[in-house]
Amino acid sequence: MQVAGIIAEYNPFHNGHLYQIKQVKRALPNVPLVIAMSGNFLQRGEPACLDKWTRANQALQNGADVVVELPVAACVQPADRFARSGVRSLAALGVTDLFFGAEHAEYDFMTYAKLVKEAHGDFKKYDESYAASFQRAITTKIGHEVSQPNDLLGLAYAKANLAFDSPLTFHPIQRKQAGYHEVTLGKGTIASASAIRKNYTQGEDKLAQYIPAQTFNDLRQKELLSWDDFFPYLKYKLLSSSVAELQTIYGMAEGIEYRLKDQMERLTDQADFETWLKAVKTKRFTYTRLSRLACAILLEMKTAEVLAYEKVPYLRLLGFTPTGQNILNKAKKSNPHPLVTKVSQDDKNNFFALDYRAGKIYQLKNKTEQDLKRAPIRIS
Amino acid sequence: MQVAGIIAEYNPFHNGHLYQIKQVKRALPNVPLVIAMSGNFLQRGEPACLDKWTRANQALQNGADVVVELPVAACVQPADRFARSGVRSLAALGVTDLFFGAEHAEYDFMTYAKLVKEAHGDFKKYDESYAASFQRAITTKIGHEVSQPNDLLGLAYAKANLAFDSPLTFHPIQRKQAGYHEVTLGKGTIASASAIRKNYTQGEDKLAQYIPAQTFNDLRQKELLSWDDFFPYLKYKLLSSSVAELQTIYGMAEGIEYRLKDQMERLTDQADFETWLKAVKTKRFTYTRLSRLACAILLEMKTAEVLAYEKVPYLRLLGFTPTGQNILNKAKKSNPHPLVTKVSQDDKNNFFALDYRAGKIYQLKNKTEQDLKRAPIRIS
Repeated sequence: MQVAGIIAEYNPFHNGHLYQIKQVKRALPNVPLVIAMSGNFLQRGEPACLDKWTRANQALQNGADVVVELPVAACVQPADRFARSGVRSLAALGVTDLFFGAEHAEYDFMTYAKLVKEAHGDFKKYDESYAASFQRAITTKIGHEVSQPNDLLGLAYAKANLAFDSPLTFHPIQRKQAGYHEVTLGKGTIASASAIRKNYTQGEDKLAQYIPAQTFNDLRQKELLSWDDFFPYLKYKLLSSSVAELQTIYGMAEGIEYRLKDQMERLTDQADFETWLKAVKTKRFTYTRLSRLACAILLEMKTAEVLAYEKVPYLRLLGFTPTGQNILNKAKKSNPHPLVTKVSQDDKNNFFALDYRAGKIYQLKNKTEQDLKRAPIRIS
Repeated sequence: MQVAGIIAEYNPFHNGHLYQIKQVKRALPNVPLVIAMSGNFLQRGEPACLDKWTRANQALQNGADVVVELPVAACVQPADRFARSGVRSLAALGVTDLFFGAEHAEYDFMTYAKLVKEAHGDFKKYDESYAASFQRAITTKIGHEVSQPNDLLGLAYAKANLAFDSPLTFHPIQRKQAGYHEVTLGKGTIASASAIRKNYTQGEDKLAQYIPAQTFNDLRQKELLSWDDFFPYLKYKLLSSSVAELQTIYGMAEGIEYRLKDQMERLTDQADFETWLKAVKTKRFTYTRLSRLACAILLEMKTAEVLAYEKVPYLRLLGFTPTGQNILNKAKKSNPHPLVTKVSQDDKNNFFALDYRAGKIYQLKNKTEQDLKRAPIRIS
């Protein structure tokens, strides 16, 4: 049985995402679609603008049949690890075909993956980031640059697929308009998620042409969250924690904890997240890596928790359609990963602790319980 | 040389405090007066309504000659320990005469102290607090109840004085009007600090009759802080910390950490500090003890830090008058405790770390640096 899959963040769901789903339906008509989505904290190290339930519902209203949440330990990760968890999770749910947007859909990602299998960055050059170093390595192996964000993510999916003996068939979809980092709204019907978030406060009406109805309604009713909402907690956390405590946080390396704490202490009382990020930036750490570290600090994400997840991955079911129900019934028999449909008191104190904690911290600003007593969304 | 001393919190400084200082000046004319004052977090486990510099200035403008800050490790403590640090600090600065308000100034506190020297509460009764149990023990030894808050603090001072071979002569001052816990403003010129704080938002003009000019001016210019300002950080801290991490906090006992965390998770999104406090209350823990624990959690106060302070006590100089300068010059030669006049980068990473941290956390809401580059106030 063929099942399509997408790994996504939907921050928030917009016409570009809808276009992608339509391409899936065109390529594989009558094939169900499973989305593996980030929860309330995202791959680039930031809080989601809307909570996972709201974003899952947006996807379900626009063609998705199942939406599962990738745990925090899978999401707040460099692209390679994020891709690995996404691919592994979709394969576990019986997905056969992976769709993803790419700046260059003509690239043969699986072949590239084989070429760069042994490529890695150089940790020893102290004046550049690992990402920049890795970039050079893959250019040499492939023969040309692969440098655009979605192309790179596609390559990461391909490497993950290769590592798991290629359970997924690859379908790159040519991205239309709007670059990933684009912050202005254009003339067409597609704008980047960054542009949509940035223009949100300027009145939602002008966003109508870029987003489906469900997202439009959600934006009318809910406040978009960002790092600025959680920055007071990050600040408090860095001021109140000792360097030794910070060293227990996942991803802390090279003594950066001293700098993160010291720069926070020196910050003016009015400074925001961006100001702090600029103050801590070094050549060795990209903004994204620092944002992810900030996320890990905010969430008290520990290395042991990430290792436990890697060892026994799991997924949270956020919602499904009747078609999705069939996939889930089949997956239940074969899925090697626990699929959490209800979080118990026992779960929250054990394997689900990091996710529960992240939900509680998100709730500080979102004011909506994220896990306990939340049943999957059912679309009839 | 005779030097008078008072142990105080001045939260904020009001006419009752001024009356007390006038009584000192009447009893010992031309004798300088040293105040050992709490910093930004108080004995009853709450943030000060105004910062330590503002409150020290209020005291200096109203007759104090020297104001020193008792460190956090001395202040956020049960009355006995608070009293012990206060008495020890004043004696170290050369103070000979201790003045304090009492509901029963006729009590012979030093004699009572000898009688209750061996008295202690019973930790084994699981349905009452240590305080209640201790209360019964002293009633038996003295022959009558000593139960009012200032009388009890006086007794604690006397016990501390006894323990240090009685360096201080005791001068209880009969308290006038306004009970300690009184929350309404009365007809006279004296109201409790609680009543002043409670009535602050109802317009400062009506407070003029109860507070000296300096306090009045400060109230006009500054926002009064309370637990409600810091509650979001406490909430974040309890939600993000594991039970094991909470167990490292000073004063955590009897498994209360499970309850503190659990009740915070169950709280509604709108609930405030008082609601949480009521939710965690048990027969074994008084509200004050729980508030102190909350303070210790907020400040990440560790047992090792308290022990380090007990072993090598120190004081922070907040301000002085020319008369005060003379006392300080004399004290410098004989004072066994370091008197911090300037906090260095080295200090903040070592013995002063808890105080610096508390200052940074207070600054989150007060928006004024509390320690680095702050020189003592000089009154000419």
